[in-house]
Amino acid sequence: MRAALYMSAGNVVVDDVPDAAVSEPTDAVVRVLRAAVCGSDLWSYRGVITRAERSRMGHEFIGIVEEVGDDVRTFRPGDLVVAPFKWSDNTCPACLDGIQTSCENGGTFGAPGTDGGQGEAVRVPWADGTLVAVPGGLGGVDESLYPALLAASDVMGTGLHGAVMAGVTEGSTVAVIGDGAVGLCAVLGAKAVLGADRIFLMSRHSDRAAIGKSFGATDIIAERGDEGIAAVREQTGGLGVRHVIEAVGTPESWAMAIGMARDGGSIGAVGVPHTAPTLPLFQPLIHNLSLSLAIAPVRRHLPDLISRITAGTLDPGVVFDNVLPLEDVAQGYTAMASRTSIKTMLVPAT
Amino acid sequence: MRAALYMSAGNVVVDDVPDAAVSEPTDAVVRVLRAAVCGSDLWSYRGVITRAERSRMGHEFIGIVEEVGDDVRTFRPGDLVVAPFKWSDNTCPACLDGIQTSCENGGTFGAPGTDGGQGEAVRVPWADGTLVAVPGGLGGVDESLYPALLAASDVMGTGLHGAVMAGVTEGSTVAVIGDGAVGLCAVLGAKAVLGADRIFLMSRHSDRAAIGKSFGATDIIAERGDEGIAAVREQTGGLGVRHVIEAVGTPESWAMAIGMARDGGSIGAVGVPHTAPTLPLFQPLIHNLSLSLAIAPVRRHLPDLISRITAGTLDPGVVFDNVLPLEDVAQGYTAMASRTSIKTMLVPAT
Repeated sequence: MRAALYMSAGNVVVDDVPDAAVSEPTDAVVRVLRAAVCGSDLWSYRGVITRAERSRMGHEFIGIVEEVGDDVRTFRPGDLVVAPFKWSDNTCPACLDGIQTSCENGGTFGAPGTDGGQGEAVRVPWADGTLVAVPGGLGGVDESLYPALLAASDVMGTGLHGAVMAGVTEGSTVAVIGDGAVGLCAVLGAKAVLGADRIFLMSRHSDRAAIGKSFGATDIIAERGDEGIAAVREQTGGLGVRHVIEAVGTPESWAMAIGMARDGGSIGAVGVPHTAPTLPLFQPLIHNLSLSLAIAPVRRHLPDLISRITAGTLDPGVVFDNVLPLEDVAQGYTAMASRTSIKTMLVPAT
Repeated sequence: MRAALYMSAGNVVVDDVPDAAVSEPTDAVVRVLRAAVCGSDLWSYRGVITRAERSRMGHEFIGIVEEVGDDVRTFRPGDLVVAPFKWSDNTCPACLDGIQTSCENGGTFGAPGTDGGQGEAVRVPWADGTLVAVPGGLGGVDESLYPALLAASDVMGTGLHGAVMAGVTEGSTVAVIGDGAVGLCAVLGAKAVLGADRIFLMSRHSDRAAIGKSFGATDIIAERGDEGIAAVREQTGGLGVRHVIEAVGTPESWAMAIGMARDGGSIGAVGVPHTAPTLPLFQPLIHNLSLSLAIAPVRRHLPDLISRITAGTLDPGVVFDNVLPLEDVAQGYTAMASRTSIKTMLVPAT
């Protein structure tokens, strides 16, 4: 089969690899319908972290179950499924806590020795725990929903989780730091899923701001740093915002998040950079802030997100502003790395 | 009147100062019945932070209202009151949020230009918002409850707040880092107020551990650092503890808190050292932790704490293992600084 391979910094190619296959009785093989390039895929692409040559790339995909191991109970060939970016057994203590990203049997697609999402097919460990079926199967949903379902595999679940951790509820005032796909999906999660009333989105890119507005952002703040903080405080009676979603992960974005949080407020942090920053605790302490951080357990949110997407009440799919054949994956990385694409979707040949 | 004065590092004395007096119509003057020495009073005593010569000391006291300004509505002379360590109007947005330590009119007793708690009387700004009356007044409660009421002015409210921030509820398993008065009161708050089931207390001092056990600690862990973490994990099936209260505030105590927290768990941090540490965010991120920090809004908890204390269902007063006349304040600082006293209570002459 064909799959994207990391060759070296700046060089991702598609090449022939062994076919995905069931190797454990709890595995399923999923034929990929759509895959995505993630901001975190860019760390190795930019040479910021090292990665083995010819290792597989990608961890976001939707597809059709093609084969299942003997112990797989929930799925059968032909099922349309969404995979979260990490697999999990969904039965261990962490999974039962809804922290499937800490599963004792968990792992990440594209890690050494595993299939990546950016390929024609993927071996999915712990299929019963990992995958979530789309009701109705392949014929049950229109292809126009594939981008939204693909977004649910990572960015939508991650953005929503940031909003959940920030304590967003009906009527909340919220600030979102970061106008990448996760930040935009945080806006959508805060608005469409949790019912936020007013949403500040930090953005200075008109295309991203436009999506943010369509997702529910009420105020676009172009200023950064102390000026960005001042702009948000000015709009909130000087008090700041009770719920802040940090979707970048740099010291600068953390400083903004803390600076614009209302005393006693909550920050939900889902920005995962290649190196997590070091945070001075004095400001959070004297302002009585809660900081919740996550490698978002997307699996927890997937059933709800899929329901909303198939019901037509949630459409995060518009974050995909670039669609390419899998064979053109290199162009996808170039577009993402140069920020000419918010998020790129890959379509394997059928 | 007589009051404790900071002279220089290692030198706190009692001397004559101007009588406390009403200067704003919202002020009350409270004659001090009992005052306490706080761990944070030791920062200047140890010379870690600078402090003006002859500045007042102390911010924990209970007493009798002696005089009220024209705008004070809730109190009258003779009322027995508990003061939280910061005053607050209790009407501003932060106060209405229950974050009275962020009051827009707030301040700390003992700050420059204010009276400290370690004196014969204290001018209390925003008396209606700050003070909480003890039902029944001076004759209504036995003097044996004074230590418990004094503990409510800071350490009990602070410890309880740590447990609240850590999400402790009925049946919780909890770890408390720190066996000072705040840590011990965190144990008591977790157990007696919030209903925790199992409580690990990190302690290697037998006197403190004994109080911790009497407050509800089920497991005393003497090991520190990685060994302390391993000991707690061993007792929790390797998973760690869902609710951790950090009551020290050093990088070492933070590392223990994070190391023993269960994935998806919560840390309530009320340790306030002279310099707040810098926290690496990678571990909290990959383990999906929530970190809530506070200069605890003791005022929020005072009515409930006073009710429990006067009802006889809560007695944090045993943290006071040293009782001295106000005039002997220097001995109190020596005892606290040398850790021969957990917490020292001062009794002004009547």
